[in-house]
Amino acid sequence: MQPLKSRPVIVLNFKTYREATGEGAVSLARIAERVRQEQGVNIMVSVQHTDIYRVAGSVNIPVLAQHIDAREPGSWTGHVTAEAVKASGAVGSLVNHSERRLTLADIGACIAALKRLDLLSVLCTDTPETSAAGAALAPDMLAVEPPELIGTGISVSKAKPEVVTKTVELVRRVNNEVIILCGAGISSADDVARAIELGTEGVLLASAYVKAKDPYGLLASMAKAAKDSFRR
Amino acid sequence: MQPLKSRPVIVLNFKTYREATGEGAVSLARIAERVRQEQGVNIMVSVQHTDIYRVAGSVNIPVLAQHIDAREPGSWTGHVTAEAVKASGAVGSLVNHSERRLTLADIGACIAALKRLDLLSVLCTDTPETSAAGAALAPDMLAVEPPELIGTGISVSKAKPEVVTKTVELVRRVNNEVIILCGAGISSADDVARAIELGTEGVLLASAYVKAKDPYGLLASMAKAAKDSFRR
Amino acid sequence: MQPLKSRPVIVLNFKTYREATGEGAVSLARIAERVRQEQGVNIMVSVQHTDIYRVAGSVNIPVLAQHIDAREPGSWTGHVTAEAVKASGAVGSLVNHSERRLTLADIGACIAALKRLDLLSVLCTDTPETSAAGAALAPDMLAVEPPELIGTGISVSKAKPEVVTKTVELVRRVNNEVIILCGAGISSADDVARAIELGTEGVLLASAYVKAKDPYGLLASMAKAAKDSFRR
Amino acid sequence: MQPLKSRPVIVLNFKTYREATGEGAVSLARIAERVRQEQGVNIMVSVQHTDIYRVAGSVNIPVLAQHIDAREPGSWTGHVTAEAVKASGAVGSLVNHSERRLTLADIGACIAALKRLDLLSVLCTDTPETSAAGAALAPDMLAVEPPELIGTGISVSKAKPEVVTKTVELVRRVNNEVIILCGAGISSADDVARAIELGTEGVLLASAYVKAKDPYGLLASMAKAAKDSFRR
Repeated sequence: MQPLKSRPVIVLNFKTYREATGEGAVSLARIAERVRQEQGVNIMVSVQHTDIYRVAGSVNIPVLAQHIDAREPGSWTGHVTAEAVKASGAVGSLVNHSERRLTLADIGACIAALKRLDLLSVLCTDTPETSAAGAALAPDMLAVEPPELIGTGISVSKAKPEVVTKTVELVRRVNNEVIILCGAGISSADDVARAIELGTEGVLLASAYVKAKDPYGLLASMAKAAKDSFRR
Repeated sequence: MQPLKSRPVIVLNFKTYREATGEGAVSLARIAERVRQEQGVNIMVSVQHTDIYRVAGSVNIPVLAQHIDAREPGSWTGHVTAEAVKASGAVGSLVNHSERRLTLADIGACIAALKRLDLLSVLCTDTPETSAAGAALAPDMLAVEPPELIGTGISVSKAKPEVVTKTVELVRRVNNEVIILCGAGISSADDVARAIELGTEGVLLASAYVKAKDPYGLLASMAKAAKDSFRR
Repeated sequence: MQPLKSRPVIVLNFKTYREATGEGAVSLARIAERVRQEQGVNIMVSVQHTDIYRVAGSVNIPVLAQHIDAREPGSWTGHVTAEAVKASGAVGSLVNHSERRLTLADIGACIAALKRLDLLSVLCTDTPETSAAGAALAPDMLAVEPPELIGTGISVSKAKPEVVTKTVELVRRVNNEVIILCGAGISSADDVARAIELGTEGVLLASAYVKAKDPYGLLASMAKAAKDSFRR
Repeated sequence: MQPLKSRPVIVLNFKTYREATGEGAVSLARIAERVRQEQGVNIMVSVQHTDIYRVAGSVNIPVLAQHIDAREPGSWTGHVTAEAVKASGAVGSLVNHSERRLTLADIGACIAALKRLDLLSVLCTDTPETSAAGAALAPDMLAVEPPELIGTGISVSKAKPEVVTKTVELVRRVNNEVIILCGAGISSADDVARAIELGTEGVLLASAYVKAKDPYGLLASMAKAAKDSFRR
């Protein structure tokens, strides 16, 4: 398998979509596994907490949690620790997704906890400025997503290219190592290519994949576009 | 197996304790399964989201989630839906635990979602007054737990018996069907007996079981005490 | 002045509307004061925390806070205590407004704190079921507001009369004393009349008053309609 | 009056202490006003939302809010906008105090809103890493406070000097203009001197001042220590 930090990166967020729950999550992860192997692109899936064990146990693809709480193991009913997602087979977690925002203090604590357990951190942010702030916390990956475009099918790389380029510029002043992704509205191979041409190293997408009529075809074309744009 | 609503009830909350994560959760659930079968008492385990599928798949005991979010399946990254916990094998969920409080509106929505999916709702509350309020929402079970006693080893049934009796009194004015439990500091068979003598129909406990040197012995004695007190 | 609990009641919520901030809040409160005196109807204004002292100090009308936190005075930066709103001249507070939801435990604590300081509690809820739950906590007033209608101009009393009648029915099973209001979309004297005919004792409204071209004319007609309907 | 950004800075946080509510807030602000004038040190008071208008209207000292919400004026009951604190006389606000944490996205939005209204932003953070992150958002001032020392009387400048020096170092890599303060446990003139010797430009304190037997004497000695250490 490619190393977890090999680039370009495609993170597939399954959210809590009905199609991507339980057996559905396993099926969609299996398709992603196939494309990952065929294309040699670093594709990961981010699944619901309840599906981590099931997917990680049956599919050979890196599995991310969608969220962790800034809590050590202990007396915290209904919370999700870094230790728990690791014990169920995840290799890392999204942090601070637009639909699950965290305090700055908790983002710091989550990234530190993931590092401590040798887990991958994928920090989500909303603007170039908060991206630079997040980069100062040294996550492994950083995904900028203007919330107003999430789920619209209008891709950030086309609708707001200046958000992407400004993010790359501000982040690089603070951190040279973080892998920069962008998300929100990524729906086609062309969106992926544009994202990478703007200076990112991959994308984060959700509904376009989960609800695709032909998820295999879509993802294969995206992976190919990512590879081709990244090489140039 | 006893029906899910048979009384008395013992709910074991695994919280995010390290000992009760992953394989640890499976082991502690297996002990509970044995006592459930031997004693014929309605014992349930409430495990971390990441462990539901693993425990429900390997142990024959009713598994509850520790929390669900008031969200339908959809574009909600990092949330936990009633649909997801059902798909991974849970038969119900705690709602509004002291360590994971919900708004009144969300409590209403969670109980409604659980009912719709034919899942058990175990609503947690903190005072006789909020218990009466909660009872008006018609959960299947209601567990009153004064937060200041949780994890102390000082049981509510001994330290604050008037909270328990007042809760039973106020709840019964509003709702005759809800199964009333009490929790916080329940550590021994004697605490369980006292709880039931005060008018409850079971208990909710966590650290005493998870951290017991002999969890089997403790739980067996509690189950026996529950049965004996309940019969009288 | 009429007693704080005289019926019918009209609560004007100024929200954080620009027109209802600072001097704007004083002006809108002064208009309400005039209608209150002319019509003899129990009209109250609920203003931003930053405007309580200013409005209460210059206008002779009962002033409510829009929210309090479930906190005693102490080491709580940026919170709003019942003691603070009383010290600045408020006679009570909204609790759990749709735009500022609280946990069930905090609702219980807020209502208890308001009672302890002899302040009026106006609990907001969203469904007949949560209204019954809230009524068990014995607030002075309870305002049911389906969130999906707030700010629409489509009044709950016309669009969802069954929510209002069901609320009155479920609340009265639990509590005979609480004053029942309804809100969401109340825009005209006719909406007020309908609300009272459905069994409520008043209304809660916001944008219709704050953004009215003629707030005096609108409120005077509403107060008259409230009086007339209530008498019958 | 000194410019709002003149250094050194002493910010007095009144929290929701009973002694610092209503008339108490005015009295404590008046003492601070006197020391500000006598010593020529940039002392500011951060008061409860309900007291901003009252204090700003009667005392000649810069008044900060303790918190604002990341909301534009509009349909947001119970929230506090930057516009509202400005309309009541505040010259700025604390942002993200340890007792009122915000999401990273909201911190970004609050700082942007304060800038837009020409108000001062004082961002609070908990570690050197989150301080660097916060500095990337370009607030006017940044106050690092290890939460575990707040209210203890054990000053960060003595108990954790390495937190202060590390913060100064990491922040200066990202931002050369932000005024760096430190807080938590600051109780004496000596604590203030130490803080400034460690490279900060002022302090944030609360209980030591609010609960002092002789607040005038304490603050005068602190202001003198700040001036003397800062000059060197």
